[in-house]
Amino acid sequence: MAHKHGHGRERIQFANAEDKQEFSKYPTKAGRRSLSRSISQSSTDSYSSAASYTDSSDDETSPRDKAQVNTQGSSDFCVKNIKQAEFGRREIEIAEQDMSALISLRKRAQGEKPLAGAKIVGCTHITAQTAVLIETLVALGAQCRWTACNIYSTQNEVAAALAETGVPVFAWKGESEDDFWWCIDRCVNTEGWQANMILDDGGDLTHWVYKKYPSVFKKVRGIVEESVTGVHRLYQLSKAGKLCVPAMNVNDSVTKQKFDNLYCCRESILDGLKRTTDIMFGGKQVVVCGYGEVGKGCCTALKALGAIVCITEIDPICALQACMDGFRVVKLSEVIRQMDVVITCTGNKNVVTREQLDRMKNGCIVCNMGHSNTEIDVASLRSPELTWERVRSQVDHIIWPDGKRVVLLAEGRLLNLSCSTVPTFVLSITATTQALALIELFNAPEGRYKQDVYLLPKKMDEYVASLHLPNFDAHLTELSDEQAKYMGLNKNGPFKPNYYRY
Amino acid sequence: MAHKHGHGRERIQFANAEDKQEFSKYPTKAGRRSLSRSISQSSTDSYSSAASYTDSSDDETSPRDKAQVNTQGSSDFCVKNIKQAEFGRREIEIAEQDMSALISLRKRAQGEKPLAGAKIVGCTHITAQTAVLIETLVALGAQCRWTACNIYSTQNEVAAALAETGVPVFAWKGESEDDFWWCIDRCVNTEGWQANMILDDGGDLTHWVYKKYPSVFKKVRGIVEESVTGVHRLYQLSKAGKLCVPAMNVNDSVTKQKFDNLYCCRESILDGLKRTTDIMFGGKQVVVCGYGEVGKGCCTALKALGAIVCITEIDPICALQACMDGFRVVKLSEVIRQMDVVITCTGNKNVVTREQLDRMKNGCIVCNMGHSNTEIDVASLRSPELTWERVRSQVDHIIWPDGKRVVLLAEGRLLNLSCSTVPTFVLSITATTQALALIELFNAPEGRYKQDVYLLPKKMDEYVASLHLPNFDAHLTELSDEQAKYMGLNKNGPFKPNYYRY
Amino acid sequence: MAHKHGHGRERIQFANAEDKQEFSKYPTKAGRRSLSRSISQSSTDSYSSAASYTDSSDDETSPRDKAQVNTQGSSDFCVKNIKQAEFGRREIEIAEQDMSALISLRKRAQGEKPLAGAKIVGCTHITAQTAVLIETLVALGAQCRWTACNIYSTQNEVAAALAETGVPVFAWKGESEDDFWWCIDRCVNTEGWQANMILDDGGDLTHWVYKKYPSVFKKVRGIVEESVTGVHRLYQLSKAGKLCVPAMNVNDSVTKQKFDNLYCCRESILDGLKRTTDIMFGGKQVVVCGYGEVGKGCCTALKALGAIVCITEIDPICALQACMDGFRVVKLSEVIRQMDVVITCTGNKNVVTREQLDRMKNGCIVCNMGHSNTEIDVASLRSPELTWERVRSQVDHIIWPDGKRVVLLAEGRLLNLSCSTVPTFVLSITATTQALALIELFNAPEGRYKQDVYLLPKKMDEYVASLHLPNFDAHLTELSDEQAKYMGLNKNGPFKPNYYRY
Amino acid sequence: MAHKHGHGRERIQFANAEDKQEFSKYPTKAGRRSLSRSISQSSTDSYSSAASYTDSSDDETSPRDKAQVNTQGSSDFCVKNIKQAEFGRREIEIAEQDMSALISLRKRAQGEKPLAGAKIVGCTHITAQTAVLIETLVALGAQCRWTACNIYSTQNEVAAALAETGVPVFAWKGESEDDFWWCIDRCVNTEGWQANMILDDGGDLTHWVYKKYPSVFKKVRGIVEESVTGVHRLYQLSKAGKLCVPAMNVNDSVTKQKFDNLYCCRESILDGLKRTTDIMFGGKQVVVCGYGEVGKGCCTALKALGAIVCITEIDPICALQACMDGFRVVKLSEVIRQMDVVITCTGNKNVVTREQLDRMKNGCIVCNMGHSNTEIDVASLRSPELTWERVRSQVDHIIWPDGKRVVLLAEGRLLNLSCSTVPTFVLSITATTQALALIELFNAPEGRYKQDVYLLPKKMDEYVASLHLPNFDAHLTELSDEQAKYMGLNKNGPFKPNYYRY
Repeated sequence: MAHKHGHGRERIQFANAEDKQEFSKYPTKAGRRSLSRSISQSSTDSYSSAASYTDSSDDETSPRDKAQVNTQGSSDFCVKNIKQAEFGRREIEIAEQDMSALISLRKRAQGEKPLAGAKIVGCTHITAQTAVLIETLVALGAQCRWTACNIYSTQNEVAAALAETGVPVFAWKGESEDDFWWCIDRCVNTEGWQANMILDDGGDLTHWVYKKYPSVFKKVRGIVEESVTGVHRLYQLSKAGKLCVPAMNVNDSVTKQKFDNLYCCRESILDGLKRTTDIMFGGKQVVVCGYGEVGKGCCTALKALGAIVCITEIDPICALQACMDGFRVVKLSEVIRQMDVVITCTGNKNVVTREQLDRMKNGCIVCNMGHSNTEIDVASLRSPELTWERVRSQVDHIIWPDGKRVVLLAEGRLLNLSCSTVPTFVLSITATTQALALIELFNAPEGRYKQDVYLLPKKMDEYVASLHLPNFDAHLTELSDEQAKYMGLNKNGPFKPNYYRY
Repeated sequence: MAHKHGHGRERIQFANAEDKQEFSKYPTKAGRRSLSRSISQSSTDSYSSAASYTDSSDDETSPRDKAQVNTQGSSDFCVKNIKQAEFGRREIEIAEQDMSALISLRKRAQGEKPLAGAKIVGCTHITAQTAVLIETLVALGAQCRWTACNIYSTQNEVAAALAETGVPVFAWKGESEDDFWWCIDRCVNTEGWQANMILDDGGDLTHWVYKKYPSVFKKVRGIVEESVTGVHRLYQLSKAGKLCVPAMNVNDSVTKQKFDNLYCCRESILDGLKRTTDIMFGGKQVVVCGYGEVGKGCCTALKALGAIVCITEIDPICALQACMDGFRVVKLSEVIRQMDVVITCTGNKNVVTREQLDRMKNGCIVCNMGHSNTEIDVASLRSPELTWERVRSQVDHIIWPDGKRVVLLAEGRLLNLSCSTVPTFVLSITATTQALALIELFNAPEGRYKQDVYLLPKKMDEYVASLHLPNFDAHLTELSDEQAKYMGLNKNGPFKPNYYRY
Repeated sequence: MAHKHGHGRERIQFANAEDKQEFSKYPTKAGRRSLSRSISQSSTDSYSSAASYTDSSDDETSPRDKAQVNTQGSSDFCVKNIKQAEFGRREIEIAEQDMSALISLRKRAQGEKPLAGAKIVGCTHITAQTAVLIETLVALGAQCRWTACNIYSTQNEVAAALAETGVPVFAWKGESEDDFWWCIDRCVNTEGWQANMILDDGGDLTHWVYKKYPSVFKKVRGIVEESVTGVHRLYQLSKAGKLCVPAMNVNDSVTKQKFDNLYCCRESILDGLKRTTDIMFGGKQVVVCGYGEVGKGCCTALKALGAIVCITEIDPICALQACMDGFRVVKLSEVIRQMDVVITCTGNKNVVTREQLDRMKNGCIVCNMGHSNTEIDVASLRSPELTWERVRSQVDHIIWPDGKRVVLLAEGRLLNLSCSTVPTFVLSITATTQALALIELFNAPEGRYKQDVYLLPKKMDEYVASLHLPNFDAHLTELSDEQAKYMGLNKNGPFKPNYYRY
Repeated sequence: MAHKHGHGRERIQFANAEDKQEFSKYPTKAGRRSLSRSISQSSTDSYSSAASYTDSSDDETSPRDKAQVNTQGSSDFCVKNIKQAEFGRREIEIAEQDMSALISLRKRAQGEKPLAGAKIVGCTHITAQTAVLIETLVALGAQCRWTACNIYSTQNEVAAALAETGVPVFAWKGESEDDFWWCIDRCVNTEGWQANMILDDGGDLTHWVYKKYPSVFKKVRGIVEESVTGVHRLYQLSKAGKLCVPAMNVNDSVTKQKFDNLYCCRESILDGLKRTTDIMFGGKQVVVCGYGEVGKGCCTALKALGAIVCITEIDPICALQACMDGFRVVKLSEVIRQMDVVITCTGNKNVVTREQLDRMKNGCIVCNMGHSNTEIDVASLRSPELTWERVRSQVDHIIWPDGKRVVLLAEGRLLNLSCSTVPTFVLSITATTQALALIELFNAPEGRYKQDVYLLPKKMDEYVASLHLPNFDAHLTELSDEQAKYMGLNKNGPFKPNYYRY
């Protein structure tokens, strides 16, 4: 199917209401990286301050209305401005410095081209880090077409740099919802090229192919999905017996979970609070709602910098961990009046209620590290008796009639997506996992994977980790034959049972 | 087979070599709490300095040769000295203060007597903490007979206090191997009483019943096993199709694992080193071999007190965690010359070799927090060119020909079993788990548990945790109906999927 | 010598070369807050990212050429744009929330107006925090005229807000050196008003009055000086017998030293590195040069977030502290090849040499937390074989011929002045100290202070601290009469001997 | 009244009541190391568990009544049992391993014998560490006679080892007060030998010489005093114009203060609590009274191990530090009901009152890390309605009528003197300082020191520190000529102004 665009700009639509509804039926109960699109609130998350260098030039022309050609003469892409390629290239090069795992994967696997013949269609955030992933896939033999999973997160210069090297990219910062689906379609629906692998973040691409191009879908060799939401959708498809393709859930691999949550949040909570409020942490009274990995990361960092932290929990096991780690476990209502900062990390909704917001003291900062934008009941603050004052980007003062101000960050959306950056190193772990998952699915012998959702084998998790050790100049010890035998282990791993908690 | 015993002190033996062999075939690869018996080295572990108040009086008469009667007129017990009961009672009362979970369990369940009809035979360390467990079981309606799982760990006064209240206890500190089996047999083999539940720590009691009293074994309603070794034996029995009884593996429950390993070792590494060597931690160079839960606990504490810690690891995932936590990951041979302290936490063997011991600097301290006594190649130190000098209890100087001294703690056995104490609070968690497992197995409806080995249901894990929260004055938050629905959770738990890593 | 000024914009000059020289003869050996002016490099320090909201509008007209009137009809001021007053007022209000010590000082002292009759001429950074100080002084009865101590640090909106309320302010962001002196002169030299108190930061105002208006200088009741450089100048004047006025050195008060250095740097090192490089701290190898208060603050924070930190020191006492705190003490050359980040905190020069920069690994980040811009030999990097690439504001990549990049922050100037913010709370401590020093000098009975430089009495240091405790809801314990007698202390302090180290 | 006994054994007495009174007039308000003797309570402190190996044999004969000869034929000593010399020698050798600073001082100074001609009479704790000091002094050329400053702290075996090598030692564990003065006299009053240097800890020896042998006193070249009490006495003598000898106050040197208090307490608080109560620190609510160096050390360690710590303070500056370090600052009465542990570190009296003891919860642990035995009002607990139960050495349960137990450690005396050990490394710092002070005073040119009390010059403080750096393999950086000039420093130090706070 070809379709025109330009001023005509056909609106791409689902054929019927059901399709539309199917999107909203997936709860966002998901997880913190869930960036659902469509009409959902969170699709308005601005992804990262790293994107902030992206020009906000006044060029108002839609990329769909521009005719652009790269220096190789190709126009099979749609980006903001192909001329920004050079700037984007430098960003990619900077990112490469912290993604040595992918570079080393390129080197190790380049001879054998394990992805030769792979035609990968991808839908992810388009950032310098993703570019390193895409160019790694290409170096390993794959052909790629790419689009963005979020309408705000695309780094235009990076998209340009990719397009310049010949990767068909369809994405720009500030897409409309219509643009969003149009871009996905342009990735999938191209003459003389049919995808046989899908790399998705959120499940939109997968859904589009499943719905619009069922014949393509059936011939796909594998799907790699990163997000909680996307994984949830895949499990539902599988349960419904409609998943005719093996899929790899890379969201739940250890390296992603522990690093993306515990370690990444340990750093980003400080960064997010500092960039928005210039708060001094020493001596501040902070309550962290939820002591899962995200909460643990936040608490560790805040305590280390001299904040006095207490915890709320619903799960007695996590609560007991909090106790042993030196945090008082309280109910939010018991302490709300004394707190300087309130941070939600629960994955739940209405964890901070209007009644509690009413009782906060003047100057209290409220933010969300959990997921989506449901944890703080922000809607309840949009009432006539309260005044909103935007004091900085991402920072609102909500002013009570008596003059009390509550400082709300990112309107209750994810603080670390909106107000801090995600370290390249963490993204490297995820990207490496995605690359390995693609290689595994593409090369797996017939029958190893059935029409189901799989976790990355532990051995590959360990391999991802091992690729990142050189960053730290870390030297792994090898088991002797005698020791391996004694432990009942293979010298090359896996080293732990599946249920190991790390 | 019937066999006599009593004053005659027949030596109790396995009927044939096979039986004997069966014991040694279980590798001690187990875990850190593995206290294997029989001729194994670790059965000589002295359990805890808490036991150190136990009298070392010169009464050399074997308890088996004494005629003792408690104040109720019963002589159905065999302890060191029934007159020590009062002292033991005070120890039990002190322990009760830190075991409020069991006390509260007594209160909650006492009305319904959930263990009425239970006839429990138990084989564990006999300490004040175990006494609190036993007396809780009795308060819940059970009849108990008890013996010791380790020939050195019995607190004689506590055994006396239990015997005085009417619990048939057969145990004393410093039993011979023959005594050990004799005591087990006296527990099981008594007229007019047949056990229907087994609580075991190490698997010896289970094995004895299985081998000697197969008819009893078949009628047992459930086995609760705490140790790695015992659990391993059960899984082997199950695999061989010989386990005709449901068994509960309490060793792998979250609360036990995380608390017994991470938190307990965090404290005991400092205590063990200090009590033996009076070392100052600040500025010491320490290498910790293994970054599992035990290693993590050790590293956290040592770093917090100013030691400079590095890590060895075989598993790249744990190694990457060590990096992110701020520890250099090295090979032991690279750093061995600089180290002030070497600590093993691997569960492996020969982690510290003679070659490495040769290269240590003068005064280097070497100890084992892992398991058993295999991690340090102590045997290699028993060679003629080296001089051993016992400088304190549990502390040997090994002196090289050039005068260099290496300080070996506990002869390479577990430092925290030999040289520090285990906090009552940690033991409370284990004891509560055991009590709940017994209640669950005894009351489970027909068919819930088959002839297999089970983990404690997560909900009961959570219950154990919740019983310990009042110790910390911790206040749990309850889900609202709306929140529970949003999360897809039952308001009373379980709150996490089984694979959750905590 | 009289000189004109006004719209004519005469260039203000020193009468002769000697005067000029006098400025440059003061070494900047000073300290980290030293912001020397004149032709010195550091006068180009951009003060704080908090100033970043300040408009960079294209209005190129010099404020000296504008005719502006505030709503009260006064034109006795010179700011960028009086119309920005409202925005500035909000910033001041926000700052007031974290400066409750000053607000409470206003309340406690307002009745008695302890500064009634004081005519204060001030020269400091002009920020929202300074505005809170100035308005406090006014509330206590003082008349104030104010100018900026740094040509870049003025927040134009705040200056406008002050001018709007009637405080004669002469300052704007981006002054020329000539503007700088012109503004100072306009503050001092006004008809019908003669300053009797000086509040200075850097010593320029003091010097100007001393040189140009000796008759005013002689009648001044007291000088309060905050900066290392200014204090140094005062001590030199005093030594030369030319200081005819009592002066208060607030730079060396405990509260300023410990808070401004230890605690403030603990937070700003993380913030400065994150905002410029988005670095992940976990597992990074960092060397911190210098283990004074600044170094201690940096090390604490970095270690807490998982960096592996080592130290260089010249002072064996500080080195021994570093050891006990768990940091390896090394020579820079021994470790330079392995480091991911190099931070200088010495107050010395050429601590990082070109030879060491040559040996750094690719991607190494180099920055300065010490003082001035001398610690890193930046000049040596401005050589033809190296390429400089500005990748972000305050971030340069220096590229070696072989492609190696070193990441230089703030061109070697102070990282926390250039790339992070200073928490209002810390500024509050300094401002409160300044206010108390002014009150003390203005009200001191004849003879209490001679023509010398004084430290704030310990009791007033303690008072400053006590005014800040309510921020933390901290409750001080009072000595009983019996206890005070036992300790030989006055119940109201001072509580420690002067030499106490805290 | 004269009375005879033993070999002469005249009872030594002060000539009159005044002398006696002079002793008691010195308040023990001193400091934590103050071990006053005579009838004072603290002379009953048992010094350290390291002394615990000391035999408690039943040999009841007073050493004064024994005739002992060492292998060299000398009988100029009085120790418990000269035959224990070999065991003591080993202890000294072990101590030498951690006192490499003294060993290296021996090596550096041995050629020139800087103490040749020095006749030192010493009065200190007699431990393996002191022996290393004494033997260092001898190696440097001094002749020494030694006695004990505390009637309980002598390690008999060490005293024997010293006597065996020819050092006249007069000391044993468990001396009477009469023995105490007799030993001092035997040290001073010997034929053909007259002391020209005094090394004292507590001031008793100094006082004795001053009172009894004024002619000796006048010819002494210098006194080195370590204790707070002794230093206090010297300042009083000086003030009274009676100090005719230069004296060195080594108590207030930086290395001693910071290490002995901050770092040493950081470790000993954990050790002392663990050895006495086996408490688990994780999650415990602890209040620390006093946030000086001792309090800071305690809080750091407890927080690091997961305790939840709050602070009481009278000094707002220390209170503000506590806030910034992340501790809530409270009044004791506000929190006393919730606390699990109460620790005093104030140097004050009645910091914990009976009223507060009454309100503690069951099982609360109370102990003193401050000084003397005044901080907890222990006397108030010796009342009829309360029952005391000694449950372990140094551990009492005080039982209220309702059954509540408070756990009192060391009867309110210093926890770390009574229940934990002092690391050799810390003692090494003090001993090295003492040795350097002796060398300095003995060799100082006429006129450098007058008849006054001096602090060790900063340069020597730095030298002490530098001698301890090799223990940590720490490498000091040297200033270049250019840097030294820039900083205005001598390349060899001193590196800091006297008021520097470290």
